[in-house]
Amino acid sequence: MSNVNHQIILAQNPTGKFSGKDFEVRKAAIPRPKKGQFLVRNLYLSLDPANRLWASPFASYTPPVGLGEVMRGFTVSEVIESKHPKFKPGDIVQGMDGWQEYAISNGVNYNEKGKVDTWNLKAVVKAGLPISVGLSVLGTTGVAAYVGIIKTGQPKRGETVLVSGAAGATGSIAGQIAKIKGCRVVGIAGSDEKCKILRKEFGFDATINYKTQDLDKAIARTCPKGIDIYFDNVGGETLNIALTHINDHARVVICGAISQYTTLEKGIQGPSNYGYLLFKRARMEGFIVLDHYVKDRGKMEADLIRWLKAGKIHYRDEVVSGLKNAPKVINRLYDGRNMGKLTVKIGKEPAVLGRATPARKPAKAKRKTAKSKRKAVKAKRR
Amino acid sequence: MSNVNHQIILAQNPTGKFSGKDFEVRKAAIPRPKKGQFLVRNLYLSLDPANRLWASPFASYTPPVGLGEVMRGFTVSEVIESKHPKFKPGDIVQGMDGWQEYAISNGVNYNEKGKVDTWNLKAVVKAGLPISVGLSVLGTTGVAAYVGIIKTGQPKRGETVLVSGAAGATGSIAGQIAKIKGCRVVGIAGSDEKCKILRKEFGFDATINYKTQDLDKAIARTCPKGIDIYFDNVGGETLNIALTHINDHARVVICGAISQYTTLEKGIQGPSNYGYLLFKRARMEGFIVLDHYVKDRGKMEADLIRWLKAGKIHYRDEVVSGLKNAPKVINRLYDGRNMGKLTVKIGKEPAVLGRATPARKPAKAKRKTAKSKRKAVKAKRR
Repeated sequence: MSNVNHQIILAQNPTGKFSGKDFEVRKAAIPRPKKGQFLVRNLYLSLDPANRLWASPFASYTPPVGLGEVMRGFTVSEVIESKHPKFKPGDIVQGMDGWQEYAISNGVNYNEKGKVDTWNLKAVVKAGLPISVGLSVLGTTGVAAYVGIIKTGQPKRGETVLVSGAAGATGSIAGQIAKIKGCRVVGIAGSDEKCKILRKEFGFDATINYKTQDLDKAIARTCPKGIDIYFDNVGGETLNIALTHINDHARVVICGAISQYTTLEKGIQGPSNYGYLLFKRARMEGFIVLDHYVKDRGKMEADLIRWLKAGKIHYRDEVVSGLKNAPKVINRLYDGRNMGKLTVKIGKEPAVLGRATPARKPAKAKRKTAKSKRKAVKAKRR
Repeated sequence: MSNVNHQIILAQNPTGKFSGKDFEVRKAAIPRPKKGQFLVRNLYLSLDPANRLWASPFASYTPPVGLGEVMRGFTVSEVIESKHPKFKPGDIVQGMDGWQEYAISNGVNYNEKGKVDTWNLKAVVKAGLPISVGLSVLGTTGVAAYVGIIKTGQPKRGETVLVSGAAGATGSIAGQIAKIKGCRVVGIAGSDEKCKILRKEFGFDATINYKTQDLDKAIARTCPKGIDIYFDNVGGETLNIALTHINDHARVVICGAISQYTTLEKGIQGPSNYGYLLFKRARMEGFIVLDHYVKDRGKMEADLIRWLKAGKIHYRDEVVSGLKNAPKVINRLYDGRNMGKLTVKIGKEPAVLGRATPARKPAKAKRKTAKSKRKAVKAKRR
């Protein structure tokens, strides 16, 4: 291999959506691991709505990415050299190794407590699932859906669950987990096509196209018994209207606020209808998925793999090839153009996945990327 | 007794604070109970911030008070005639018998489930406490403090609790209950005098005068370890700033939003910093005290009476004499003029309290109304 590590750094804090000037490509030397470290080759990079939050100068649950620093991002990678007792060359791992081709890791990813270990995807490899699901259903987005619905939402059979950003990587899984738990699930998305996919492929009971329908009336119609769990990815006016439809003892799960991320600098819209939390004896609660990686990731991974293999969870991965395309496609997350998990393929998957497993073809069965691949090609040609 | 029942009816929905035109006095005949009903003579009327909410045309956790209807209010009353199996003449009861001298009750007060029974204050009488505490420490305000701190807030020893509206009937008790549970308690109030009383009489660890201090800096200074429970009575910018100081897994208890009640018609300020619920894995939760009357009132009453008698809870009752003065003094709740529980004395207490107890003088020991009584006299003379 050459000794060049292509990196994308944050050149300036964005205002509004990301612009071409917010990022710069930098060539660095491939670093070598010291004792307690390992070197990874990044294969897939996760693009997430929270990236916009991290690129702002404001601290949230993580400090902001500094200017000139490699842009932060979750990754699926191959360990290629290790001086760390737990990781060996060939391991396929999920970590937070950033917008670059190679990275040094000490096996611990950032969270407030500094205690999230890089996760060995051996169970994913063993299950024959595409390793890119380590960034979608088995990544932060799918696990966020799990934590938000099951731990924070605490669904009961027969309850009504409303999900905003329902066609996104987290929302689409959140709705399906709620279905598994016996709930009636309604999804809000931004196009008729997305709504159709949510109903036909993902099993949502009803959908709302917020761009063409009156949200208040549409919620009343699709949630005739009111909302018991509102899983909120978008914030803004959608959250505000949803609050007026909650039932007694409802749970409003704050997963994100995509509608607000690109206008952070102008201030956030607060939910003026928060009084419904009082009227309805309800709670609004946030969570940080990384917290739950610490103690429960094995159990959550096992559940999700079982549901995937049983066909109870469907998903879409939209894979774009080429690290350099990450800045070009990330705005798809904010303008409603993407469906499912937006991922960038940085490096070629090894022919043999995992340490000691025999050679195998990457599983294709579950990856529904026919359309995504066309998009990927387009992005590549730009 | 004469056959006249003086009533105060809601004549129009207020805009801004209450005005003289919002209420009218009406003379009606004293009604007679039918089977399953009893007649009460109201002794004390509770004035509460939520009155403004009830008088607006908007439904909240209760339907609005209709124009021409007797204004809704919690009361302490004497049963004077009964065809109800549970209530006998002489019983001192707490109910929701409105802004009037006499009322017919079927023993069930309004809540959404229609299941809150009128409460016999025999334990209060037996304890020798002034029966007006049936509207303060032992009434909805004190019990709201109990429910909000203990059930919703779930305090742990050593945690920091911030209370807004801390000099009010609920806030002052909330802070003291948090102290009993071993927390460090900081109160926000609107005058140096109130702050002093909170510290010296009620045992708050620190106080903030929001009218003269920079709230953000003052919270940082008085809560150096951050906020674990924020008990919010006021909403608005106070809630918004407090959110930026919460700790991981904090509980923001929504008890009320006094700062917003007199401007309801212009819309409510939503907490734009609600994202801290996510960053801090925290929850914001509302409660309706009447829900908890149904199953747990006996236990809560026993705790509160025990704490009162042990000197662990102090309180101030501000008692104004004369039903006709209720419309004149209610705005004290919104402009920060009152301290503790604002109550209107409607009728003379019977010489003998309760069914079969011997004659006794009303206990005075705990009632700190020297100042309040002067105010009451002033109000009476207007």
